Amino acid sequence: MGTHEHDEETYRRGRERFLEIHDEKALRTVEGLGDLGRHIVEFVYGQMYTKPALTDRDRELGAVVALTSLGRSSQLPQHLRASLKAGLTPDELREAIMLTATIAGFPPAMNAMATLKSVLAEQDRGADGATEPG
Amino acid sequence: MGTHEHDEETYRRGRERFLEIHDEKALRTVEGLGDLGRHIVEFVYGQMYTKPALTDRDRELGAVVALTSLGRSSQLPQHLRASLKAGLTPDELREAIMLTATIAGFPPAMNAMATLKSVLAEQDRGADGATEPG
Amino acid sequence: MGTHEHDEETYRRGRERFLEIHDEKALRTVEGLGDLGRHIVEFVYGQMYTKPALTDRDRELGAVVALTSLGRSSQLPQHLRASLKAGLTPDELREAIMLTATIAGFPPAMNAMATLKSVLAEQDRGADGATEPG
Amino acid sequence: MGTHEHDEETYRRGRERFLEIHDEKALRTVEGLGDLGRHIVEFVYGQMYTKPALTDRDRELGAVVALTSLGRSSQLPQHLRASLKAGLTPDELREAIMLTATIAGFPPAMNAMATLKSVLAEQDRGADGATEPG
Amino acid sequence: MGTHEHDEETYRRGRERFLEIHDEKALRTVEGLGDLGRHIVEFVYGQMYTKPALTDRDRELGAVVALTSLGRSSQLPQHLRASLKAGLTPDELREAIMLTATIAGFPPAMNAMATLKSVLAEQDRGADGATEPG
Amino acid sequence: MGTHEHDEETYRRGRERFLEIHDEKALRTVEGLGDLGRHIVEFVYGQMYTKPALTDRDRELGAVVALTSLGRSSQLPQHLRASLKAGLTPDELREAIMLTATIAGFPPAMNAMATLKSVLAEQDRGADGATEPG
Repeated sequence: MGTHEHDEETYRRGRERFLEIHDEKALRTVEGLGDLGRHIVEFVYGQMYTKPALTDRDRELGAVVALTSLGRSSQLPQHLRASLKAGLTPDELREAIMLTATIAGFPPAMNAMATLKSVLAEQDRGADGATEPG
Repeated sequence: MGTHEHDEETYRRGRERFLEIHDEKALRTVEGLGDLGRHIVEFVYGQMYTKPALTDRDRELGAVVALTSLGRSSQLPQHLRASLKAGLTPDELREAIMLTATIAGFPPAMNAMATLKSVLAEQDRGADGATEPG
Repeated sequence: MGTHEHDEETYRRGRERFLEIHDEKALRTVEGLGDLGRHIVEFVYGQMYTKPALTDRDRELGAVVALTSLGRSSQLPQHLRASLKAGLTPDELREAIMLTATIAGFPPAMNAMATLKSVLAEQDRGADGATEPG
Repeated sequence: MGTHEHDEETYRRGRERFLEIHDEKALRTVEGLGDLGRHIVEFVYGQMYTKPALTDRDRELGAVVALTSLGRSSQLPQHLRASLKAGLTPDELREAIMLTATIAGFPPAMNAMATLKSVLAEQDRGADGATEPG
Repeated sequence: MGTHEHDEETYRRGRERFLEIHDEKALRTVEGLGDLGRHIVEFVYGQMYTKPALTDRDRELGAVVALTSLGRSSQLPQHLRASLKAGLTPDELREAIMLTATIAGFPPAMNAMATLKSVLAEQDRGADGATEPG
Repeated sequence: MGTHEHDEETYRRGRERFLEIHDEKALRTVEGLGDLGRHIVEFVYGQMYTKPALTDRDRELGAVVALTSLGRSSQLPQHLRASLKAGLTPDELREAIMLTATIAGFPPAMNAMATLKSVLAEQDRGADGATEPG
């Protein structure tokens, strides 16, 4: 259904970029969404995330700010993990969330800060010899 | 009215930061909002924009993404100008807006891209024979 | 309290339409909201859902798109069930959600697609001789 | 078209309440929207604005906060005028808008404050030598 | 810049679909947005608008509801024109906008209804003695 | 980190106001957010909530309407409790939520009404000699 219009080469490149940014588990979740998941891998990761001007750190900073602004909490933990992987420090993320409070209000920033806190706690727990890479 | 709770030192520092990020004309607009304008200068520029972890380039990248996501068009031109001043290139801004399209949808990204186009054109006109391509 | 301004005839018609679109259980939830629930039955189902131009299929397509766009997840499962009852196929709903991704962004579409998946799974489970009508 | 489901008595009461809150010119604009305008007069002004617990001052405070939060600028000037008519002072409105900044962010509050400023200026001009300071 | 990842075949198909839905003038506006415009033509029109399950009438109904819900007024006139072209009648559009009022509130529906009114008036003027009543 | 720019006097005043409006437990949650929590206590409660024009009842009416409009459910229970403490009656809160439905749509109002219902039930349970002040 609807798969004839997908482009294998773009999909393959998107899958590779997705795994650099996130991980296998996140990929399975996205692919569990069927045709929509395939478009996300192709368009977002195969096309948007392969453009030359921004770094992955820039992109994840942007993703965290956009998701926080719009109060889209389901995708935030995964992008906070990707932000840390892309080199943003916990302090940089805290400031980015505080800055977002000035544009989107304190409530979504409070929620995002609590989410960051639990992502950092989860990584601390995982860091004692665990293999979960974050 | 209500000014007794303002802190002169924070306000002075905010005013200085505001002028580094934006310009005199933008400051007059904000100060034209009275008590609210004063709080913006103090809290946003005197407190949020003086934190140590993010660079001004990071902050303006975040501001452009947040304003685009929420479709808040009135403040966007000024932050696009501040972004260029803080070192973001036109191509980086274009990619940031395209990335925002994936999180907030194409319509707000289309509006932001059209606004970027006119900010770049305005800067070209103002640039006295400059070669900045837009 | 406040019930003097309700119109019995419109309410009765709304209740009937509500039960055609949704079911008894959903009606009890709405009526549990008191005066607000009564206005929803009267105004939304007794007035908006009895207008002559659109079909129920059109209305539910619109409701799914609006709820997805705004990220209003609490009311989505019930309207996805109503959509299937009104004749929208799972593939039509999947495409409607993907289309919404282009206007509202991928995150709310991802959430809506996951919700559709569980509504469809719940109906599959219920279809083995169960009486729950969906 | 679609008018059979309107209730004349509720409409008449809504029209009366609308004119107490706003004015003839605003009513003509709403009635220019046809069937939708009629539902607004009936449902919002004939039913919501005739409930017993809140005062008009409370309702207009709520309307200004809701419209500011959501950035719905088209309806704001009319509700700011209605707020002043219902007894809210310019200082109360300024504080309400500043409070909204903490929940919805500074950009929509900046826009609302600028709108309030021009509504107050417009009322000063219309005030035939009145001393109302704005 | 960034064009290496575009797919010519998908773009060509998207351009064709775009012109069936909208017109040459609208295409020039989108293409004026550069790389973003190209992605819109490819992804939205070349991929989303070529899926098999929904009709163009369904898609435009969805687009009008989504744009109205989110208050995205810049893209609404063009999709209202496309809706009429795809077979939605003025009465169906009026009901769709009224239905959206119940999910997104009256203010965005009021704006959309006023926009529909001017799109219909513009089509009447363009219609050389046509009888379309608007 | 970042605390050098906090003002002890404003923080102390904010903490006092916060405890008048909410309670110790809510304060611990906000302070658990670190630097952001500190800014909320200082700016929102030490500066916005100490302005002279609005009453606490007005402020909480505004907070409930803003949080309901934006669908920000995490902060709503605490502000509903604060509303009751500031003198708003359950009926006034019900009407405020219904009024918000007209501006923001029924779905966020339905959620807010269900939240109010459980806040009221929780207070009823707590009222039998319990010490939890609400």
